[in-house]
Amino acid sequence: MSAQSKLLQSFFNPRSVAVVGATKKIDKAGHVIFKNFVENKRRGVFKGEIFAVNPNEDSILGFQCYPSIVDVPGDLDLAVIVVPALVVPQIMRDAVKKKVTSAVIVSSGFGEIGNHELENEVLKIAKTGGIKVLGPNCLGIYDSRTGVDMLFLPETKVLTSGDEVIATPRPIPGDIAIVTQSGAFGVSSLDYLTGRQIGVSKFVSFGNKIDVTETEVLDYLAHDKETKVILLYVEDIRHGREFLKVAKEVTRKKPIVVLKTGRTTAGARAAASHTGALAGSDRIYDAVFAQTGVIRARDMEEFFDMAKALSMQPPASGPNVGIITDAGGPGIIAVDECELRGLNVKRFSDVTIRKFEKLKDEGKIPKFATNLNPVDVTGSATSEMLELATKILFDDPEIEGVILLGLHHVPALQEDYIDKVAKVASKCSKPIVACDIGETEMALRTRFRFDKLEIPAYSSPEDAARAMNGLVRYGAFLEKNGCFEEYLENFLRTKCKR
Amino acid sequence: MSAQSKLLQSFFNPRSVAVVGATKKIDKAGHVIFKNFVENKRRGVFKGEIFAVNPNEDSILGFQCYPSIVDVPGDLDLAVIVVPALVVPQIMRDAVKKKVTSAVIVSSGFGEIGNHELENEVLKIAKTGGIKVLGPNCLGIYDSRTGVDMLFLPETKVLTSGDEVIATPRPIPGDIAIVTQSGAFGVSSLDYLTGRQIGVSKFVSFGNKIDVTETEVLDYLAHDKETKVILLYVEDIRHGREFLKVAKEVTRKKPIVVLKTGRTTAGARAAASHTGALAGSDRIYDAVFAQTGVIRARDMEEFFDMAKALSMQPPASGPNVGIITDAGGPGIIAVDECELRGLNVKRFSDVTIRKFEKLKDEGKIPKFATNLNPVDVTGSATSEMLELATKILFDDPEIEGVILLGLHHVPALQEDYIDKVAKVASKCSKPIVACDIGETEMALRTRFRFDKLEIPAYSSPEDAARAMNGLVRYGAFLEKNGCFEEYLENFLRTKCKR
Repeated sequence: MSAQSKLLQSFFNPRSVAVVGATKKIDKAGHVIFKNFVENKRRGVFKGEIFAVNPNEDSILGFQCYPSIVDVPGDLDLAVIVVPALVVPQIMRDAVKKKVTSAVIVSSGFGEIGNHELENEVLKIAKTGGIKVLGPNCLGIYDSRTGVDMLFLPETKVLTSGDEVIATPRPIPGDIAIVTQSGAFGVSSLDYLTGRQIGVSKFVSFGNKIDVTETEVLDYLAHDKETKVILLYVEDIRHGREFLKVAKEVTRKKPIVVLKTGRTTAGARAAASHTGALAGSDRIYDAVFAQTGVIRARDMEEFFDMAKALSMQPPASGPNVGIITDAGGPGIIAVDECELRGLNVKRFSDVTIRKFEKLKDEGKIPKFATNLNPVDVTGSATSEMLELATKILFDDPEIEGVILLGLHHVPALQEDYIDKVAKVASKCSKPIVACDIGETEMALRTRFRFDKLEIPAYSSPEDAARAMNGLVRYGAFLEKNGCFEEYLENFLRTKCKR
Repeated sequence: MSAQSKLLQSFFNPRSVAVVGATKKIDKAGHVIFKNFVENKRRGVFKGEIFAVNPNEDSILGFQCYPSIVDVPGDLDLAVIVVPALVVPQIMRDAVKKKVTSAVIVSSGFGEIGNHELENEVLKIAKTGGIKVLGPNCLGIYDSRTGVDMLFLPETKVLTSGDEVIATPRPIPGDIAIVTQSGAFGVSSLDYLTGRQIGVSKFVSFGNKIDVTETEVLDYLAHDKETKVILLYVEDIRHGREFLKVAKEVTRKKPIVVLKTGRTTAGARAAASHTGALAGSDRIYDAVFAQTGVIRARDMEEFFDMAKALSMQPPASGPNVGIITDAGGPGIIAVDECELRGLNVKRFSDVTIRKFEKLKDEGKIPKFATNLNPVDVTGSATSEMLELATKILFDDPEIEGVILLGLHHVPALQEDYIDKVAKVASKCSKPIVACDIGETEMALRTRFRFDKLEIPAYSSPEDAARAMNGLVRYGAFLEKNGCFEEYLENFLRTKCKR
């Protein structure tokens, strides 16, 4: 880890934190953030000291309130600043006096609305004290392990009916880190991932990035044991050279999936008016991502789908995909999508075809099952057929990844096929992804069970193919850089531990 | 309606139907199909006569069982054939004797596994009696209005735990027709649409199409009052000239969205081994669809998303889209996707921008809201802001469609915004689609409420943009063919009636 990114530790694991702008008013961000720290401290998750800073209140949630940062006793690692923009320079001057290590400026009203001078003033003050700054105009940090939690959007809303419902869910612990320029996209991500029961290790919303950039965060996360996959949302990347250098190193250790917006002229114009980002040519970004092994997602869904695949499955050692299906049409859809994305769905080897023919002779799969790739065990599918087919494809040295379409609608297929397939897959270092189409009970159960057994499951053949494409692209990058084996070994070792 | 497609009436609304292969064995298709008719007759939905045909049983579900079709009393409109493939020719000979109008051959074991001779024999017999044949190797027909229902896949499954869960849901009544070559894809569609609470008017699985083709079904559905949008899944289209002629006429009356698979060489090979389809060049299909105004979906999700949009919203009179958002990042994503699909997200007119500036002066939207397109009312969004912005965009003659991103995570936004926006939209003939990101409670509620009010809602900005693209593409086709106004008038009239 570089000296630079070591400095970021105080953001994620501060020994002491002050919330500047902490208040008793329950609908204010300053209240919610302070309360998050208080609750995590009481639960024993957050181990550091916590302080409330507000000249207008005496105590908050049973904690004494200090009029200024300088009045806080002892050393202060982190200041979380939630006050009106115009007050921020004064707070930063106090922070310098107090020799604070780092500051998260949650407040908005800076460069994003044209107040560049104010932003520059804040940065200048921070530099005089050597304070690292995250933000401004950001949601800050959430760390599932240390209990640092600055998410202040209301967890629930009360409807006109009087019912209280979840509005912005707390993340569940997991191994995917989210690094985002857009706070709104960030909370949307948490809502999406939590609803799909996918866990988050860390969440970093860096907003206007006047100091700490996406690059520094990536460097930090490369060394974070809780994080297996990094999701990065950006509208622009400044300091491209630094990004190139760092990202290339990070992706040798763990995959980065990026959603880079402002791809079109109109999109770039919108980005410019959103964060003042100068987007630059989208082709340059494509080149940068290709060179650094950062996997660019085409859209939001692919972004999350690839992350899920990369967190659950090893990368593929090549582009040759074998497809198993119990439904002809959806099988063809999967083949098309694989080929359109540059994967190969080649005719199976003679050895493999002979194995399927043998199964036919033995009456173990239907006589009229097609077996050239896809292997289609037809509407007569049973758990045993899908299990046998999976085993045969895993044993085929020419197959580097498996897509399993086990549509549950066929009469004889029982849900135990999922566990059977997972058992076969657990003995192999090739990736497998699954698909079941449908939005009612059995389909939801099927996908959930697959996910639970760490076989990522998707609701369309195309989504499954795209997820496999993420595993293939990452594998190709690792191979090219001579670190495939090392990554795989490490991946399988951590997987066994769970 | 052509004389040809009038013949299809006996499939969808027969005065009498015989299920050949009806049986007491509850896990057999012949049982489920006969039971569907019995139940729909008892409910008063199916108005025709029903007969069970099986030489080995005396009675089924209280109905007398006839040894052969020829023994059935009175005229017979429709025979549903669910017997082993080899027996089908004999059944067809009986059907000819009985002067049956039409037959659905559910049985498989024909051309799809290379038994072309058997298939030809069946067709030849049918022709001697002038019997229209749907199938073989198909799931047949489901008609929400007449109670014709040949869906035989098990509605529920019993899990190892003993729990019984929905496996293949019954469709809910609605205005989308599904026409599919793949039965498996067909049931998947029903599962998808039902889970998303989208209703189905008719379902036609035509399988090997030895007689009735997709083209005839399209022609029939063009005149079906219950059907507003047609979803077509095909692996190949035979008789291209006829398709060209008919599809062009159908799309003047109602939109057809197609998912054509076998796009790649490997996909075409898989299609060939699935149904024996000779796929032909994908470019030719592209040209045919473009010429006939059939909207080709890029993937399964777009297929359903476009159908939902076209069933709920009028087509757009042009490609100029206005975007409203309360979240900067997702707004940019929507802009990008619109532009990448060929829609225009132009800077708003000066008049519109002045209206937004006035709202700022009046304190009705935040001072720092951006308003060039998208209009971003920021995280301070309220219901009133989104309502006002919608009104302004609907009033702008340069805006031909509106995408509303009302992400619910922002603190002050209440769910009543949905009804407010729907009220504004109901007074206008421009299309609007909505998006809220997230998979937990509030996001699901939000999208469901939008759908309920016939504003189609999507879970990602890209999906919303693609749905709008469907409305724009269909509008452009109608404009080009001089039938936009007529379609729009008809669309709005039927909408008012609901």
